[in-house]
Amino acid sequence: MELFFLGTGAGIPSKERNVTSIALSLLEEINHVWLFDCGEATQHQILHTSIKPRKINKIFITHLHGDHIYGMPGLLSSRSFQAGEEGLTIYGPEGIREFIETSLKISATHLSYPLSIIEIEEGKIIDDENFAVYAMKLDHGIVSFGYRVVEKDKPGELLVDKLKNMGIMPGPIYKQIKENPVTILENGLSIKQDDVIGTKKKGRVVSILGDTRYREEHISFIKDSTVLVHEATFDHEKQSLARDYFHSTTTQAATLAFKGNVKTLILTHISSRYQKEMFHQLVKEAQGIFKNTHMAKDFYQIKIENN
Amino acid sequence: MELFFLGTGAGIPSKERNVTSIALSLLEEINHVWLFDCGEATQHQILHTSIKPRKINKIFITHLHGDHIYGMPGLLSSRSFQAGEEGLTIYGPEGIREFIETSLKISATHLSYPLSIIEIEEGKIIDDENFAVYAMKLDHGIVSFGYRVVEKDKPGELLVDKLKNMGIMPGPIYKQIKENPVTILENGLSIKQDDVIGTKKKGRVVSILGDTRYREEHISFIKDSTVLVHEATFDHEKQSLARDYFHSTTTQAATLAFKGNVKTLILTHISSRYQKEMFHQLVKEAQGIFKNTHMAKDFYQIKIENN
Repeated sequence: MELFFLGTGAGIPSKERNVTSIALSLLEEINHVWLFDCGEATQHQILHTSIKPRKINKIFITHLHGDHIYGMPGLLSSRSFQAGEEGLTIYGPEGIREFIETSLKISATHLSYPLSIIEIEEGKIIDDENFAVYAMKLDHGIVSFGYRVVEKDKPGELLVDKLKNMGIMPGPIYKQIKENPVTILENGLSIKQDDVIGTKKKGRVVSILGDTRYREEHISFIKDSTVLVHEATFDHEKQSLARDYFHSTTTQAATLAFKGNVKTLILTHISSRYQKEMFHQLVKEAQGIFKNTHMAKDFYQIKIENN
Repeated sequence: MELFFLGTGAGIPSKERNVTSIALSLLEEINHVWLFDCGEATQHQILHTSIKPRKINKIFITHLHGDHIYGMPGLLSSRSFQAGEEGLTIYGPEGIREFIETSLKISATHLSYPLSIIEIEEGKIIDDENFAVYAMKLDHGIVSFGYRVVEKDKPGELLVDKLKNMGIMPGPIYKQIKENPVTILENGLSIKQDDVIGTKKKGRVVSILGDTRYREEHISFIKDSTVLVHEATFDHEKQSLARDYFHSTTTQAATLAFKGNVKTLILTHISSRYQKEMFHQLVKEAQGIFKNTHMAKDFYQIKIENN
C-alpha cells in the first residue's frame, strides 16, 4: 500500500505542481491501483512513474472542478491503447457521467474495456473481502466528497510450531482448527482457536478528502486514519480567504489530523502563490499543531505501513 | 509570423512528444496568437514557452479526436485565471460546441471573457483587413479540416527619397499621392503612383492540415503555401497501414508539398513507434521527394519569412 502524488497544485497547473491526482497503489494487496481525482495531464505524469494505466481499476472523483476531472477523457482513451481490457469503475458526484460520456462520444472514442460510472451518495460505496470505502460530503460550494478507504483486518496466522509441539501434525485438521472456535480432536483433546492463532493484522485506513473548508463534522469521518490526505490551499494567516474560497489552511488541516487522532498527515493542493522557499514554513506551521505532517510535491510517494 | 509546435505526437502522449497543438504567433502582425488544435496538456506545454494564453484569440480545431481537443477545457479555464478578458473564438467541426459547453457546465467554470464557438463548414471562414482563412474537408473517417491562412498583400511604401529628389517635400500631398493613381501637383507636374511606390509586399500563406489520408484534391487547397504543416503518422513503407487508419506517410506529405509548389514542408503528428534514431530517416525519405522538408518536435519553432 503506497500513495503516489501525481499532482499537488491548486486550480491551475504550474511548472512545479500539476493539478490534482493521487494514486493509491494496492499492487501488493489486490494487484490494482486506485486513482483519486484526475486533473489534466494526469496520464502525462503517470508516464514518469512505474504505474501502468491498465492496473487502474477504480477512479474516485472528489468533485467536478476542472482541475480534478479534465484529465479523465485522455486517461480513459489512452488506457484503451495500452492493452487495457479489464473493467474500470469511476465513482464521483452527479454530473461525472455526462462529462465522461459526452467527451467520449464527441471524440468518437471506443474503449477496449467495460466502463462503469457510479454517481455516488454519502455512505458506504464499496464493501468487499479486502476493502470498504466510505464517502462523506464536505464543504466546498459544489458537492465535494471525502473518501475513507478501510482495509479489512486480516485474521492471525495459525501457529504451526505450537501445534506441532502439541503433537498435531499438518493436515485437514489445520483448516478445521482455523475455522472453528473450538475443535475436538480424535483423542478427545479440545483445541481453542484463540490459543493457536496469532494476533490479527489490523487493516490500514487512508482518508483522502477533496477540496473543503475546515469543519468539526469531518473529525469522526477521518478518525484514527493511518494516513490523512488533506488540502492546504492557504497558509495559516489566510484563514478568511480560505473560508471565502471554500478551502482550508495548513493549520486547519493539522487541527483536523490532531483531533482525529490520525497517524500521518499529508498536505496537498498547494496554491501556486507559494514558492519553494515557502514550503518549509507551511509545513512548520502545521507541525506546530500536528507533528507528523508532510507536504506532498509532485511524484512524492509514501509507503503506508501497518499500525 | 512564427509557428510554435506545442505537441507533435499521434494518438497518445509520450515522454518525447505531446499530443497535437500548434501555435501561429501573429504578435508582430496583429498582436495575437492563433492556436491550431489543443490536445491534453497544451496549457502545460505553453508554460514552457513565451506564449501568453490571454493573447490567444482564435482556436481552430481540425477534428474532434481526443488527442486534438482534450486540452481545450483546461486552457479555456486557465485563461480566465490569467487576466484574460478579451474575447476568444473557437472554430471547429460540429460537436465542438457540445464538448466545450458540457465540460464548462459540469465543472461549474465561469469564464472571465466572452467565448464564441463557431461550428464551421467548408469555405472562407474569416476575412478581415489582415487575413483570410479557408477551411477544406480532408479524408479522415470523421470530419477533419485543413486550414489555409492567407495574409493579405500589403501595398508598397512611398519612396520618400525619390519624391524628395523630385523636389516634393513631405506633407499632406504624400497621402494624396499614395491614395490616387495619378496626382497633379500645383506646378502642373503629374505624378503616377506606380512610379513613387515600392513593390507591394506579398502576403504569406500558412496551410495546416488535420489528420488525413493523401488525396490529390488537397493540392489546389495548399497551392503555393509559404509553409505547409502536414501529418506524417507513418513512414514510407507503411502506406497501406496509413490508408487503413486514415493517415499519411512521410512521402505522401512530401508529394503533396511538391505538387502544391509550397516553399517549406513541416512534418508533424509522428507515431510514437518511431524513436529518435529513426527521425533522420523519416525526414530523408520525404526530402527525396521535396527537399525543403523539416520534421517538427515539441517546442520546435520556425519564423515564416516573406516570399
